[in-house]
Amino acid sequence: MSPDRLRRAAEQMRALDVDALLIGPGADLRYLSGYAALPLERMTLLVARADDIHTLIVPELERPRAEAMDLPDDLEVRDFAETQDPVDLVASACAPLGPSPRLGVGDRLWATFLLAIQHALPTRASYLPASTVTRELRMRKGPEEIDALRRAGQAIDRVHARVPGLLRPGRTEAAVGADIADLILAEGHEQVSFVIVGSGPNGASPHHELSDRALEPGDAVVVDIGGTLDGYGSDCTRDYLVGHAPLGYMDIHATLEAAQQAACDIAAPGVTAEAVDAAARDVLDEAGLGGYFIHRTGHGIGLEEHEEPYIVAGNELPLEPTMTFSIEPGVYLPDRFGMRIEDIVVVTHDGIERLNTGERRPVPAG
Amino acid sequence: MSPDRLRRAAEQMRALDVDALLIGPGADLRYLSGYAALPLERMTLLVARADDIHTLIVPELERPRAEAMDLPDDLEVRDFAETQDPVDLVASACAPLGPSPRLGVGDRLWATFLLAIQHALPTRASYLPASTVTRELRMRKGPEEIDALRRAGQAIDRVHARVPGLLRPGRTEAAVGADIADLILAEGHEQVSFVIVGSGPNGASPHHELSDRALEPGDAVVVDIGGTLDGYGSDCTRDYLVGHAPLGYMDIHATLEAAQQAACDIAAPGVTAEAVDAAARDVLDEAGLGGYFIHRTGHGIGLEEHEEPYIVAGNELPLEPTMTFSIEPGVYLPDRFGMRIEDIVVVTHDGIERLNTGERRPVPAG
Repeated sequence: MSPDRLRRAAEQMRALDVDALLIGPGADLRYLSGYAALPLERMTLLVARADDIHTLIVPELERPRAEAMDLPDDLEVRDFAETQDPVDLVASACAPLGPSPRLGVGDRLWATFLLAIQHALPTRASYLPASTVTRELRMRKGPEEIDALRRAGQAIDRVHARVPGLLRPGRTEAAVGADIADLILAEGHEQVSFVIVGSGPNGASPHHELSDRALEPGDAVVVDIGGTLDGYGSDCTRDYLVGHAPLGYMDIHATLEAAQQAACDIAAPGVTAEAVDAAARDVLDEAGLGGYFIHRTGHGIGLEEHEEPYIVAGNELPLEPTMTFSIEPGVYLPDRFGMRIEDIVVVTHDGIERLNTGERRPVPAG
Repeated sequence: MSPDRLRRAAEQMRALDVDALLIGPGADLRYLSGYAALPLERMTLLVARADDIHTLIVPELERPRAEAMDLPDDLEVRDFAETQDPVDLVASACAPLGPSPRLGVGDRLWATFLLAIQHALPTRASYLPASTVTRELRMRKGPEEIDALRRAGQAIDRVHARVPGLLRPGRTEAAVGADIADLILAEGHEQVSFVIVGSGPNGASPHHELSDRALEPGDAVVVDIGGTLDGYGSDCTRDYLVGHAPLGYMDIHATLEAAQQAACDIAAPGVTAEAVDAAARDVLDEAGLGGYFIHRTGHGIGLEEHEEPYIVAGNELPLEPTMTFSIEPGVYLPDRFGMRIEDIVVVTHDGIERLNTGERRPVPAG
């Protein structure tokens, strides 16, 4: 963890007129403090202030875990006992911020904690998502972060290279998925984040995971898999064929390949996120397939599987070097089949670099 | 899933003067609707109303997954497209609830969704944790829930029975933990929830997980493990010895056994949760060990690893038949060793039944 992240967060708070961030367990906390806290019903909360006074509030029995994490020097750790109300510590860590502080609340902080905090702090306090501040930092990756994403990408590519050998008629999606999960760990991830094996008509549901459906000759199979490696995510989708391709599949897939390539071709510094989405969508629209592309083109990736920037209509954010996100158009024909091609990319000074490089055409099983 | 849970939730809302529940992905949603939603940055929200009008709001591309889940008949599913704001659907599902509705918000709903909802709904709406309503249902388990917890308990007992064979000097906690994780799945859990192997001084941190520390002769080892089976949790801690016991260990462990037994002996319908905590604590206090018992005696368990009722000082809740929770006193001597004995129990008509039955004394490795 880079030691100056709290300092940069405080700078960003001052620029955005935010008085403090209230951050629970999760990616923002890991990013800012290096602390991989457990998501517990006992509150863990980082109070990071624009005036550079930072407090980490932890349950007493988590204090050893927290202090084992090489926390930043300028972070004071305060703990509370089993029968104490941690909200008192939050109020004290926020004092004095004036009668109407603007507080950034961790996007994934549990509502039960936010409600307790809202009751304890001044009624004229206002709340906004902490990502308003942290996105400005986390969207732009440091070299060590890009390196971790590259290694995660290479690891998931090695898993995909072994998927054809797992797809045999008669095997269930669940059995194939279990093997893939083992491979994700064997190839160096510390955690399996998701395994989607969408065979035949199941491929037409973009977030179908696994089922007991057995593979059949003539199945198209969407395999979308990811894990984390040194805390950073991998996420890559490839399409496979068990036996012959379904009627019409190869032509549609060629169009999808062109759509994914078009989005990769246009992505570069200064180009908006929505322009990348439109580049893929236009190719599919022209082929009359736009109605079957029912999700955005991509999402940022880093400490979280899905984070800013989102590659979606309406997002006018101009891309910048070191931003990392997926480019993953798909086509879903209900009751027939689905397909999706997904690479993680990093924006360079004049375009993008793909962090996934495996075959993007449909790969025959076996 | 029992089909009348939404109806009982609505009854409970009327009894507690709550107009609606706003529930995101998680245990409350699974309990009330049977829908195991993914925790996504796209909102999924159940709006369950006291007037028996219930709406499930899902992202368009999750609709197939949701509808595959055998949802209750009286639940209307509404979806939103990638570029639509789901908060409009929330406002419409809440209308008309009057100018100052009382809304129960899912305890673990992400703050970013709660803030968006608070902005969109009437400013005189008030918010409370949804668990105020759902705890009344979920604390009292149905027969099918107790059956699932019993099978999960038996499965984790079978894992513990094989732990002594894994604990050999020179093996790391991480290596032992990986083997245990495999066994948790092999014994019928669908998911590993946590694996704690606290060897030697690491055992003195109650939530220490795994490290690269190699086991040594003379280590006491705390092994606290759990998974889910048919959605319901297992959670059982046992203590092991690699070679000889550390100085003083056996006497202290005998006291801990007496403390855990005392809590099990007193637990019965009508007895308060805090009385169960006190029963264990008193035994350790009398032996001068109270200062080393730094956490509550237990937590409820069901669809969540930790849920109501909490067995802790200050909780005056009287126990009732079918409540399920852990009884897990521990002793932690900093820099030396730790120990904890944990069983899941279910309250019967006149006492408790333990769902974990393996040896509670320190078990020699090998």
